[in-house]
Amino acid sequence: MKTINTRKTIRKYSDKPVSDELLNRLLAEAMRTQTMGNLQLYSVVVTRSAEMKEKLAPAHFCQPMVTQAPVVLTICADFNRTTRWAENRKATPGYDNLLSFLNAATDALLYTQTFCNLADEEGLGYCFLGTTVYNPKQIIDTLKLPRLVMPVATITLGWPDENPPLTDRLPLQSIIHSETYTDYTPQLIDEYYAEKEALPENEEFVRINHKETLAQVFTDLRYTKKDNEAMSATMLDALRSQGFLD
Amino acid sequence: MKTINTRKTIRKYSDKPVSDELLNRLLAEAMRTQTMGNLQLYSVVVTRSAEMKEKLAPAHFCQPMVTQAPVVLTICADFNRTTRWAENRKATPGYDNLLSFLNAATDALLYTQTFCNLADEEGLGYCFLGTTVYNPKQIIDTLKLPRLVMPVATITLGWPDENPPLTDRLPLQSIIHSETYTDYTPQLIDEYYAEKEALPENEEFVRINHKETLAQVFTDLRYTKKDNEAMSATMLDALRSQGFLD
Repeated sequence: MKTINTRKTIRKYSDKPVSDELLNRLLAEAMRTQTMGNLQLYSVVVTRSAEMKEKLAPAHFCQPMVTQAPVVLTICADFNRTTRWAENRKATPGYDNLLSFLNAATDALLYTQTFCNLADEEGLGYCFLGTTVYNPKQIIDTLKLPRLVMPVATITLGWPDENPPLTDRLPLQSIIHSETYTDYTPQLIDEYYAEKEALPENEEFVRINHKETLAQVFTDLRYTKKDNEAMSATMLDALRSQGFLD
Repeated sequence: MKTINTRKTIRKYSDKPVSDELLNRLLAEAMRTQTMGNLQLYSVVVTRSAEMKEKLAPAHFCQPMVTQAPVVLTICADFNRTTRWAENRKATPGYDNLLSFLNAATDALLYTQTFCNLADEEGLGYCFLGTTVYNPKQIIDTLKLPRLVMPVATITLGWPDENPPLTDRLPLQSIIHSETYTDYTPQLIDEYYAEKEALPENEEFVRINHKETLAQVFTDLRYTKKDNEAMSATMLDALRSQGFLD
């Protein structure tokens, strides 16, 4: 897994197809990931048809990767299969609640990341679409997801047709806490964010957005309180409609 | 990452220490995992002291791995650091909502799984403790997690002192859906669960628990509706107390 050190998000893909054989091998290997009670609380909807990619695209704000990638994977937290199993085995399931959603979402996300790490090793490129949790209802309708199934991750996948530079990361000590959590003083914030804020691309990002600080680009433009609150309401509705909330 | 094909959960660890150098290298490499807006919405609390392991153990139902493992990692969804950064940069953060919790939990879980994949390759053993989301409040108090920080995963880590057999998995086709979700008919349930239900260890599991079917062991004993509903209420309280829900 030396590939982790050069991992990049890939948004442009070549015309070379991703074979079913390769895709299925990686999807199967990723199933070795630990899972709650060995229940495998996830499903993967594989999108290859141009028509379905066009239908999915608006939920992902029409980012071009969705229609350009040879494969789109929507990974879902799935308590439907386990529930059906129980119903067919004289057992009474109790997975229509928030905890069960979190259990299944955890399974699904761990599975997703093992898949991503395996894809890296094959030289495949991928982009993780955070938009999945912004517009769950559109994805649910398009992919015909039943009750107790929620989309939690989308991966666009293909052979890379670009080689972007490595993105920056915070220093390790900024994410590590020894024994108990040490809160971030203004001095620590300055220390941990200095390198990020001084990067020429981030300074440019502040300038072209007419902001005073890099943090303002995030709070005022990219991830705003207003959007987050609206999407939280949408998410609660989706969890309710999928049976995970009373 | 050929190690994925033989991955096992390890619950018994040898006395050999896990060096800070190795641990920090893996924690740093895992940071290459994709993250929302490159914000790295996670923190890791590293527990090495026997005293802190004893304090954490009850939250994990006193499973022996917690006190026996040389290292316990509690991985948290963390919007506190980003919020502090914003507050120190004339920016108004808006991350006290459910969507932001899901964004940070996603970041934290993807990070966790890359760490696990890397640990596998080093020959380290680990156990992912699903109990983290059962008793978040105890963990929050013990590790002194501030507002906008929620524990989402716990990993016990050490050098393996056991070699358990590989656990079974459902057939690949049971988790894959082509283009749209195909719901599970009784016939498909029979087909997909036949192998699991016929395993001698699972038949024994049903027998010693005096149940009629394997599914009943899960619904009546391991993951019951009553427990799930009680823990859903606890989770909602914890999300509220940590500032992620109004």
